[in-house]
Amino acid sequence: MSHQNTFYSKENHGNYELISLGEFHLAEGGVIPNLELAVKTQGTLNQDKSNAILITTWYSGTTKIWEDAYLGENRALDPSKYFIILVNQIGNGLSTSANNSESPIDKANFPKVRIEDDVIAQHKLLTEHFGIEQLELVVGGSMGAQQTYEWIVRFPDFMRKAAPIAGYAKNSEHDFIFTKTLNDTFLFDPNFNNGDYEHTSMIPALKRQANLWDVMGYSTEMFRQKAYQSIGFETALDFSEGFTEQYFSALDPNVLLTCAWKWQRGDVSRNTGGDLKAALGRVKAKVFVMPIDTDMFFIESECKLEQEQIPNSEFRPIKSIWGHLALFGMDKDYLNQVDEHLKELLNS
Amino acid sequence: MSHQNTFYSKENHGNYELISLGEFHLAEGGVIPNLELAVKTQGTLNQDKSNAILITTWYSGTTKIWEDAYLGENRALDPSKYFIILVNQIGNGLSTSANNSESPIDKANFPKVRIEDDVIAQHKLLTEHFGIEQLELVVGGSMGAQQTYEWIVRFPDFMRKAAPIAGYAKNSEHDFIFTKTLNDTFLFDPNFNNGDYEHTSMIPALKRQANLWDVMGYSTEMFRQKAYQSIGFETALDFSEGFTEQYFSALDPNVLLTCAWKWQRGDVSRNTGGDLKAALGRVKAKVFVMPIDTDMFFIESECKLEQEQIPNSEFRPIKSIWGHLALFGMDKDYLNQVDEHLKELLNS
Repeated sequence: MSHQNTFYSKENHGNYELISLGEFHLAEGGVIPNLELAVKTQGTLNQDKSNAILITTWYSGTTKIWEDAYLGENRALDPSKYFIILVNQIGNGLSTSANNSESPIDKANFPKVRIEDDVIAQHKLLTEHFGIEQLELVVGGSMGAQQTYEWIVRFPDFMRKAAPIAGYAKNSEHDFIFTKTLNDTFLFDPNFNNGDYEHTSMIPALKRQANLWDVMGYSTEMFRQKAYQSIGFETALDFSEGFTEQYFSALDPNVLLTCAWKWQRGDVSRNTGGDLKAALGRVKAKVFVMPIDTDMFFIESECKLEQEQIPNSEFRPIKSIWGHLALFGMDKDYLNQVDEHLKELLNS
Repeated sequence: MSHQNTFYSKENHGNYELISLGEFHLAEGGVIPNLELAVKTQGTLNQDKSNAILITTWYSGTTKIWEDAYLGENRALDPSKYFIILVNQIGNGLSTSANNSESPIDKANFPKVRIEDDVIAQHKLLTEHFGIEQLELVVGGSMGAQQTYEWIVRFPDFMRKAAPIAGYAKNSEHDFIFTKTLNDTFLFDPNFNNGDYEHTSMIPALKRQANLWDVMGYSTEMFRQKAYQSIGFETALDFSEGFTEQYFSALDPNVLLTCAWKWQRGDVSRNTGGDLKAALGRVKAKVFVMPIDTDMFFIESECKLEQEQIPNSEFRPIKSIWGHLALFGMDKDYLNQVDEHLKELLNS
C-alpha cells in the first residue's frame, strides 16, 4: 500500500476484515483487479439467517461512525438481536481505494465507481461470503441512502425493510453542483499535482472543503442557536476550526474525489431507462424515508416526492437543527428519533 | 486609474456621476484621500425636497441592476413621482474602490470599509450635495439591506419609510462562514498574487466563486423545477456556466474582497454597544422587512426575529423559488411582489 494516510488504518478503525471479491468490473468500464471490501460485523447470524442487517457508508465516512454512534444494546441496531454487517463503500479509503491501491489503479488513476457497483459488490459479498439470501433491513445515510435506494430497486426481493436516511434515490442538480464545489477545493490547488500529493500539503485545501460543509452541512438555525456550544466550542469559528476542519484535514483527497463522482451520479432510474417512477414502483420492501428537516441539500420536501412513489413506504422526517451532518450523531435527540423509527420498522 | 476592468465602466453602466466627498476617515482607521461616490439619479426633486428615495447596492452589484429591473413608470420606484438617488457602495468598483484607486489604496491595499462608513458617506452626500434633510424611503437588497438597517438605526429621523430586502440587521455566523468560502476562492489561488493579478488569470477563481453562488444563491426547489429554462438554459450546468459563471467572471476580486469583508461584519448593534434590541428599538421609520422565502442564507425566520424588534414594522416575506438571487429580477413574480409591497409602503 502506497501513500497510506494514518486515518485509514486498523489502529484508527478497529480490526475490520478485508474480504476479497476478486476481479471486479465496474459499470463505467474500469476494472479493479482484486476488489476488497472492508467489512465489520457485530452480533451473530441466527440459524435460519433471518436476522441480518446491512449498513452502508457515506461520503467521508467509514463504518466506524456507525459502530460508535448508532449501534448498541437496547438500540434499534442491537447486536444482541441482529447480525449487523457494516460495509465500507468502494473507494472510501478502507475498501479498495485510490489511497491503498497500486498501479494501474492508484491515486488519480482509480477508476470511476457508481453506486450500483457498490450494491452489486455487496450483493456478492452477502450471498457468496455470508450465504445470506435475504436481509431484515438495509439502512444508510447520505451516500448510504443512495446505496439503500439502489438496493431496494435493483434487488427488490432481497430485504424486508429499508431506511434511507438523508439522501435521494435520484441525486439533484443542485446537489451535483455542491459536490463540484467540494471537488474544486482540491482540483484547483497547485499542490494537488494530479492526485500525486503529500497529505500535509493538501490540508489547507481539506480545510477549505470543510468550510463548504460548515456552510451547507449544518443549518443557519444551528449557528443562530450556537448549538455547537453543546459540544464544547465557544464560537462558530472555534467550531469550524476545531471540529469541521479537524475532521476533514485527516481525509484523503483522492478518496473524496472517488466518492464525490459516485455521489453526484446516484440515480436508481438507471435501472429503468430513466423512469424514476417505474424504478421506485418496483420496491417491495417496507421503507421508512427519513430526511432531516433542516438538511440544506437533501431537503425534506424532495425526499417526500420520492417517498410518495414507493408503494409500501412511510415518510418519517427527523427533526434536528444540525442539518445534514446530524448524521454524525452530535445531536442525541436526532439519534433517539432514528432509533424510534428504526425500532418501529424492525418490529413491524 | 490602474488595472481597469471593462465591467466597471461608464460604457457598461451608463453615465454615472462621481461626487467627491473629500478626505474620508473610515471606522476601522483607514483613510480614503478623496472619496468619490458613483451616483445615478432618476426623476426630479420636488420643491420641498420631500420625494427623495435612496437606493443602496449589494455585493457584486451596482446601481445598474436597480435601474434595469426595479425602476420605471407605474412601478413602485417611479421616476415620474420620485427623485431616486442610486448610490454605489464604497469599494464596489464604481465608487472609490481597489480597482480604480492609486497607491497607497490600490488593489489589496484598499482599506477596510464598514457598512456604517457607507451610511455616513451617503448621509453627507444627501445633506451636503443634494441638500436633502429627510428621505421618503430607503431601500436596498442584501448588503443594501444592511445599509438600510444601518440608516434607520443611525439616523432614525432621516427617513419616513424603509424596506430592507433579503438581508440582516446583524449578520449571522453562518453567513460569515459562507462569505469566507467566497473569499477563499481568490485568496488560495496562486494567480491572486496578493491582489496584484491580471483579470483574465482570475477567471477560473471567479467561476469557482460563481459555483458557490449556484449552490447557496438560488434554491434546491429552483433546480428541481428547472426554472432556469424560463430564462433560456436547458440544463443546470448550462445555467451555471452560461449565467452565474458569466456574471461573476466579469467582476474584480479585490472589489469583491472589500465588499465581503464589509458584508461579514454588518451589525447595527455596533450603535448600541452590542445590544441589538436597543438598536432596532431606536427605529422611527415605518419598515417593511422583506426576506425571500427560499433564501438559504438570509433566511425568513431569522428576518422575522429582527422585524419583531422594530417598533413600526411589518413582516412582508416574498415568495420566489429563486432564493437570494431573486434579487437579480429573473422572476417577474418576485418583482411584482416587491412592487406591491413598496407601493403599499409608499402610499401609507
